[in-house]
Amino acid sequence: MSRRSGGFVVLEGIEGAGKSTQLERLGRRLAATGTEIVRTREPGGTEAGEQIRGLLLDPGFGDVAPETELLMIFAARAEHLHQVIRPALQRGAWVLSDRFTDASFAYQGAGRGLAMERIEALETWLQGDLRPDLVLVFDVPVEVGLGRALARGKRDRIESEDIAFFERAREAYRTRARCDPERYRLIDGTPDPETVEAAVARAWSDWLENRAG
Amino acid sequence: MSRRSGGFVVLEGIEGAGKSTQLERLGRRLAATGTEIVRTREPGGTEAGEQIRGLLLDPGFGDVAPETELLMIFAARAEHLHQVIRPALQRGAWVLSDRFTDASFAYQGAGRGLAMERIEALETWLQGDLRPDLVLVFDVPVEVGLGRALARGKRDRIESEDIAFFERAREAYRTRARCDPERYRLIDGTPDPETVEAAVARAWSDWLENRAG
Repeated sequence: MSRRSGGFVVLEGIEGAGKSTQLERLGRRLAATGTEIVRTREPGGTEAGEQIRGLLLDPGFGDVAPETELLMIFAARAEHLHQVIRPALQRGAWVLSDRFTDASFAYQGAGRGLAMERIEALETWLQGDLRPDLVLVFDVPVEVGLGRALARGKRDRIESEDIAFFERAREAYRTRARCDPERYRLIDGTPDPETVEAAVARAWSDWLENRAG
Repeated sequence: MSRRSGGFVVLEGIEGAGKSTQLERLGRRLAATGTEIVRTREPGGTEAGEQIRGLLLDPGFGDVAPETELLMIFAARAEHLHQVIRPALQRGAWVLSDRFTDASFAYQGAGRGLAMERIEALETWLQGDLRPDLVLVFDVPVEVGLGRALARGKRDRIESEDIAFFERAREAYRTRARCDPERYRLIDGTPDPETVEAAVARAWSDWLENRAG
């Protein structure tokens, strides 16, 4: 079965952790192998998903209940899985996604206080047993991440949360990475992009070796 | 506990079955009892919910996966429960809702072919054990309902489905009503509004008696 040729790789981390930059660089490196690369992101990744993302990130959408936010994100994810992720994996492509369900555990779980068990139930409801093959978690202190995000322009609804919210999200990412070392790699996102890229390359080789074994 | 003073009443049926007209009339009649009446509708019922409804009913939203549609509707429902339904029931009001979760079973289940068990799982995930106290199902032949809906103006994305889709939804409503006669009343929505209103009044008295007993 051709699934082995590619795989489902997710880049996670709080705002300003460097996910998007590293996704581009990893994508360029993988492109050299000749395997199809699908770059995508959440929430969004499809036309309907981007419309849902637009609603969610609009400060005018207001202070919705955590469950409302979670279900919206899973709606966008349903479309993303249906249109993009599952077909690409079927074709044997590498799927590189800027965020996936780990972000729901970090933001709606740790951030907004929804029980992790309820998020797990929704994860299984939607995904069955589909999980990312590899999750790269880019870890930066909250002040560093938010400083970079602010330098990029104005804050959206989710980026306007307080520091403690992002501290909880960061801690959730670190905990998830530590609890499942086969599928997760925790990468220090603080240094310059070249240094982080080198760390990604090492994590990648290490993961590929384990995967082959 | 004051919950007994009011209750959660849902009016269901396919397009053009007469739900909205009867909701207004039932609301006027109940208002005479002095109990607070909250009139609402799904999908929608809150500001965020109406924005989600707007996306869902927009023909430009495109042909999304049934799971995407279902999760969007449950997102709107989460907000509706959080902001409107639970607080109103806590206050002892009558909540009269034009549609609720039965519509998900009829439209996304029977209509679009999602497994009823998956919808039940999401229902329990969101609602816990909250279910309507009474569901009035207005039953009309599909041609009659769609004829009335068309006479009201242009079709939205969901009203543009084919006849067979609405036949399946209608049958699902009838089946659900028959399977739980304590909480459901099936009402012929074909006659003129006054005749239907009289049938609602009879169903209502019958239900109230059973409830008191």
